[in-house]
Amino acid sequence: MTFIQHLSSILPVSDALKDELLQLTTVKELKRGDTLISKGERCNDLYFIERGLLRGYYYNEEKEITHWFAREGEWATSFYAFIARQTSLEYIEALEDCELLQVPYSKLQQLYVSHPETERIGRLLTEAYYIKLEGRLLGLQFTSAKERYDALLENNPSLVQRAPLGYIASYLGITQETLSRIRAKY
Amino acid sequence: MTFIQHLSSILPVSDALKDELLQLTTVKELKRGDTLISKGERCNDLYFIERGLLRGYYYNEEKEITHWFAREGEWATSFYAFIARQTSLEYIEALEDCELLQVPYSKLQQLYVSHPETERIGRLLTEAYYIKLEGRLLGLQFTSAKERYDALLENNPSLVQRAPLGYIASYLGITQETLSRIRAKY
Repeated sequence: MTFIQHLSSILPVSDALKDELLQLTTVKELKRGDTLISKGERCNDLYFIERGLLRGYYYNEEKEITHWFAREGEWATSFYAFIARQTSLEYIEALEDCELLQVPYSKLQQLYVSHPETERIGRLLTEAYYIKLEGRLLGLQFTSAKERYDALLENNPSLVQRAPLGYIASYLGITQETLSRIRAKY
Repeated sequence: MTFIQHLSSILPVSDALKDELLQLTTVKELKRGDTLISKGERCNDLYFIERGLLRGYYYNEEKEITHWFAREGEWATSFYAFIARQTSLEYIEALEDCELLQVPYSKLQQLYVSHPETERIGRLLTEAYYIKLEGRLLGLQFTSAKERYDALLENNPSLVQRAPLGYIASYLGITQETLSRIRAKY
């Protein structure tokens, strides 16, 4: 799904608004393994993923924890840092070659003022991020590793082919051995 | 801060919009100890707190965990259940006698359509919830109990007078004994 298709699914996009939306963005390309954002950096941009796969991760007591994955048709940024205007606590890395559309924070705020109906984009984007974050939290507390893996397969079936299993195990909050045992039962 | 004052701080509220906003809401009163929402219930309403203090909590392995506090001038609901249209996983309880303004989900959606500029309310509300949730998560992972207690005092200085210390300790992720030791140093 392209950027304009994605936005058209959220609100009616007139030709005038379409032009303005495209002028907001610049294309950014990443090679597999590139780092998009590092811990401690300001996070001034939101990225719409036209092609590719990214992950967010952070360190807890020197252990790397995968916090999220995002793929084509989804948004990626260090969202907390972006909306709270803080420096990032996480790293974002390209797991595949990526083509991103970069939307600067300042231009997004201008768009909300010039076209108030686009606030809907911001609201639904933020709701989606909230649901993803709290769903993950609740999942880690209230569901089994097997249930979390099933949910992952349902939401993002190609992820197991596209991302290293170590990252997926970390995201699910289990060891790679436990993940292998779950996968062996399929 | 009243409901209309709060909304006026977010966007210009004309007299016509003010009337419409007030027609959205009904007053709901709670006595201290009353339960507003229980686990398993649909969460069809958002509440603006005109007066009082509430907390959200859930059970993890039969242990009660306080997840948040909200007081006058703030919003309260089982937010995940409200926006994801799921049943609530948490309980919400009045810690003081409360006066709430109840806003039904369906009326809020109608408002977004009839007055698209009010999407801004939804976006900023959702951003505030996101920041609160991720801030709490990151706080529990990356800061000491003392730092979390200091942050709590800064954001909500009267809370230690208004809420039982056991709930505050649970919210901070520490035992009541550890909280007492931290407080004794002040």
